[in-house]
Amino acid sequence: MSSLHTYAYTVSFGDCDPAGIAYYPNIFKWVDTAFHDWLFGFGGHGALCEQLGATGLGLMDSKARFRSPLQNGDALVVTITALEWGKRTLSPSYQGHVGDRLAFEAQETRGVFIPQDGRLTAGTTDGLRTLIQSDD
Amino acid sequence: MSSLHTYAYTVSFGDCDPAGIAYYPNIFKWVDTAFHDWLFGFGGHGALCEQLGATGLGLMDSKARFRSPLQNGDALVVTITALEWGKRTLSPSYQGHVGDRLAFEAQETRGVFIPQDGRLTAGTTDGLRTLIQSDD
Amino acid sequence: MSSLHTYAYTVSFGDCDPAGIAYYPNIFKWVDTAFHDWLFGFGGHGALCEQLGATGLGLMDSKARFRSPLQNGDALVVTITALEWGKRTLSPSYQGHVGDRLAFEAQETRGVFIPQDGRLTAGTTDGLRTLIQSDD
Amino acid sequence: MSSLHTYAYTVSFGDCDPAGIAYYPNIFKWVDTAFHDWLFGFGGHGALCEQLGATGLGLMDSKARFRSPLQNGDALVVTITALEWGKRTLSPSYQGHVGDRLAFEAQETRGVFIPQDGRLTAGTTDGLRTLIQSDD
Repeated sequence: MSSLHTYAYTVSFGDCDPAGIAYYPNIFKWVDTAFHDWLFGFGGHGALCEQLGATGLGLMDSKARFRSPLQNGDALVVTITALEWGKRTLSPSYQGHVGDRLAFEAQETRGVFIPQDGRLTAGTTDGLRTLIQSDD
Repeated sequence: MSSLHTYAYTVSFGDCDPAGIAYYPNIFKWVDTAFHDWLFGFGGHGALCEQLGATGLGLMDSKARFRSPLQNGDALVVTITALEWGKRTLSPSYQGHVGDRLAFEAQETRGVFIPQDGRLTAGTTDGLRTLIQSDD
Repeated sequence: MSSLHTYAYTVSFGDCDPAGIAYYPNIFKWVDTAFHDWLFGFGGHGALCEQLGATGLGLMDSKARFRSPLQNGDALVVTITALEWGKRTLSPSYQGHVGDRLAFEAQETRGVFIPQDGRLTAGTTDGLRTLIQSDD
Repeated sequence: MSSLHTYAYTVSFGDCDPAGIAYYPNIFKWVDTAFHDWLFGFGGHGALCEQLGATGLGLMDSKARFRSPLQNGDALVVTITALEWGKRTLSPSYQGHVGDRLAFEAQETRGVFIPQDGRLTAGTTDGLRTLIQSDD
């Protein structure tokens, strides 16, 4: 499996619900954290937004399939497995594993949100793409 | 719009990220909370699981489209707009509004998870369906 | 019991840990949310900070005593029971009840944080006190 | 500084509030996670509770002093600096640093909660103490 980035996190007691399983909004938290962890390699979210005049690399949609439960003590590794660029979107794909076991798959669609006429709109991704690829 | 259930929550400062917008895993938290709030009408998640011999009405997948940002003070209303039943799945659909403004749409696929041979598997939804519909 | 403000929240499944009890950082979340809910009566945190040239009404310390467990479905009411003003601090006290049952007591010390010489320092509370009391 | 255990976590965008600073309930989350991370060295919370017939090593009270703000990208290290044992309590002390900078100090009081007559009560800490010290 090719991989743009990996983010490691050990699931803790407080991440889990009364069924003893990681509460699923936390899985989206770890997906988002993997994305921001990847951004640290390009200066981080704040520095990138400043260069782009953007408010944030925000979400348009997000989805996940939960394949096996995560529990207290599981050594989770979130991998960014792919990144697709559109004119006004970037779509990272993720997998979460504990060892060889697949725990979840996820995909986000994000935009580069720019303040315009008093609201946020998705600008082109050209600037972000340049900043990220010039760093290769 | 027809509606099975509504759940109201006022977005707070601490739900929002440095861009001043509700952090998106919290939106999944409110979606899940709307589901559990609906279950209270049938005795709640714990009582239903006990009757069904289930560990939980857990998630197989979940997705959301974010249509407009939520901010500190927004009076969010999450509506369960539909519920589809499969042999081993139930799929609630959700919308989140602030007044007339659509903030998000979401859909979950859930199963009735039963302990079997040392792991959790999705049993039939017949029992749950009966409990919920006998309550009409 | 006198009371400056009350904030109501129904504890949900996802707020609870594998012991079936509300995970304690969430209790601090509800305490903080009660504070921000109270601020809505004076325009909200954002408007107050703008008037005061402040970055936030941030925390210096916080503590809680947990008196009885909170569980899925508990109708929690958080009450701000007192508010003490110091030259550079304000200290709200809280109680959390489910019906007559005391679930927790908490106290925060907050400051009006102002950007100064590249860092945040606690300014006087005079301005905030005036804004809040003129609203009586 | 002596230390029983350290837990490392990089603060992420989604941990921070609209003021750009780690939202304080998350600090209690990291404190609690450091405690559970320490327990992994003795089999983890679940295994310890099973050996002790306990429901959980739950909280009686918790407090923190916030000394300097945490932000996206900060490499936080939480240290358990001390552990005091009482007849029915254990009280871990914590410090959170980013490099040399002190971000917070915290202290918890925990009990070994045992089901008794339909409610949870704090039993003696003797059993836990033996399990932890025999592991030295």
